[in-house]
Amino acid sequence: MILVVCLNPALDVTYHVDSLVPGRSHRVRSQHERAGGKGVNVARVLHQLGEHVILTGLLGGTEGGVLRSELDAAGVWSCWTAIADATRRTVTVLAQEATVLREPGPVVTDAEWGAFLRSYTGLARRATAVVLSGSLPRGVPDDAYARLAALSPCAVLDAEGTALRAGLDAHPYLAKPNAAEARGLAAAGDPLDALLAAGAANAVVSDGEAGLVAAVDGRRYRVVGPAVPGNATGAGDALTAVLARGIAAGTEWPALLREAAAVAGGAVAVPHAGAFDAGVADRLRADIVVEEC
Amino acid sequence: MILVVCLNPALDVTYHVDSLVPGRSHRVRSQHERAGGKGVNVARVLHQLGEHVILTGLLGGTEGGVLRSELDAAGVWSCWTAIADATRRTVTVLAQEATVLREPGPVVTDAEWGAFLRSYTGLARRATAVVLSGSLPRGVPDDAYARLAALSPCAVLDAEGTALRAGLDAHPYLAKPNAAEARGLAAAGDPLDALLAAGAANAVVSDGEAGLVAAVDGRRYRVVGPAVPGNATGAGDALTAVLARGIAAGTEWPALLREAAAVAGGAVAVPHAGAFDAGVADRLRADIVVEEC
Repeated sequence: MILVVCLNPALDVTYHVDSLVPGRSHRVRSQHERAGGKGVNVARVLHQLGEHVILTGLLGGTEGGVLRSELDAAGVWSCWTAIADATRRTVTVLAQEATVLREPGPVVTDAEWGAFLRSYTGLARRATAVVLSGSLPRGVPDDAYARLAALSPCAVLDAEGTALRAGLDAHPYLAKPNAAEARGLAAAGDPLDALLAAGAANAVVSDGEAGLVAAVDGRRYRVVGPAVPGNATGAGDALTAVLARGIAAGTEWPALLREAAAVAGGAVAVPHAGAFDAGVADRLRADIVVEEC
Repeated sequence: MILVVCLNPALDVTYHVDSLVPGRSHRVRSQHERAGGKGVNVARVLHQLGEHVILTGLLGGTEGGVLRSELDAAGVWSCWTAIADATRRTVTVLAQEATVLREPGPVVTDAEWGAFLRSYTGLARRATAVVLSGSLPRGVPDDAYARLAALSPCAVLDAEGTALRAGLDAHPYLAKPNAAEARGLAAAGDPLDALLAAGAANAVVSDGEAGLVAAVDGRRYRVVGPAVPGNATGAGDALTAVLARGIAAGTEWPALLREAAAVAGGAVAVPHAGAFDAGVADRLRADIVVEEC
């Protein structure tokens, strides 16, 4: 079982409008809601891959209830610690451009965080890999990911800012930020060097169409594939999902990096995050170049 | 008991952001939610006035549950017909200016509308006045307000567009659109004449700081008072509430128009809709001029 942690899930609401003009009133043409947050996307992709995955984290309010129902209906197993505050929403207004409004989200109490830690400790013991993904809600300590990573020999950390920096102190098995998140750790110099120096045992950094670089088992790889038209949101989460699965299965790194890049490309071909087009991934696989450097 | 109909209530969400820039991602600094919709505002004001009021309409989804809980907590009696679709949200993004996103709202089935009609028929029989206020959700017939008004000798209609035009066919006791809504009925000419010609027994038209005009019991009045700084949203609903209460009580029109204008001014002094500042209303009362014209 792969355990995916999503401490700050979101109910992603999308509004389609003709155009967004500040100061005006707009009729929303159509709308949809979807369970979101990086960990939710990772768990969905693992579920699509046929993996036994459990999604865990903190959930509250009516928004949390909607999110849980959607994941239940999708067949994604989840085990949440209830919080008093409501799970955040993210509103994306789609016109010619995408305008995003991110709610501040819940404040987690010490007691709630303690309850989550107890639940997590039991789940992590049974997991072959643990994915720690996304932002931390207010009230959760900065070193949350370090505490969680310390309880698993096979932790994959995908975060940014303080959550990433503090999490690396626990020497997670793999750090997988994207290039922008890695630059937050060290503005200059090689991002892989920075991640290893900060504590990661292995590191993979994705950079959109530029592909990805990896420092794994003492070797360096560069992975490049054909550009895929579509929506890159969630592609990094698909990458994380495949990497966690391969680490749990003991897959060789060159083959794993190729597979991860293929599935991430397949995720770009799907308009929403948390899913990939298996046909696109199949076609990409042979054209992805993995070279040691 | 005054019965207030709100067929298309809304959960009004307000986001405070530093500035709204289309195409950007924004952190919401603070947010709040409030039960909204014109009928909800009218019922709240009647409740604040100490009237026995029942709010009725169509409600669904988790948003509907939040709305109902808030009204219960506020002590406003409500009796809703459940619908399968979710009650709409209205998102207002407050920066230097207010940008509003109005969800399309639920689609009501024939069976749901039939269930509401049966419930309404029983409630209207016990009401001294009925307020029909706001927009119609999709699926509800255009002549909904005509059907509802026909069941009450004391119907107050505050709507716009087709809902207003069709509702006037049933000769409601009072039509009370604002000036912009009345212009939708007849672009040129006197709005009071247009409302009476279309079927209203009596008519009051509000026009913000310009005051209001009335054609009631065969007489014409103009009502003007001091300008009140604040938020005019919901002032028209406060006006409707006082007019309905006065009609039910048989108050003389000049006194009723003065009282309604005073409470509407008190509503401007409160930052949110559905409430009025009684102190401001008290101070305004003497300075409001009601003249026959």
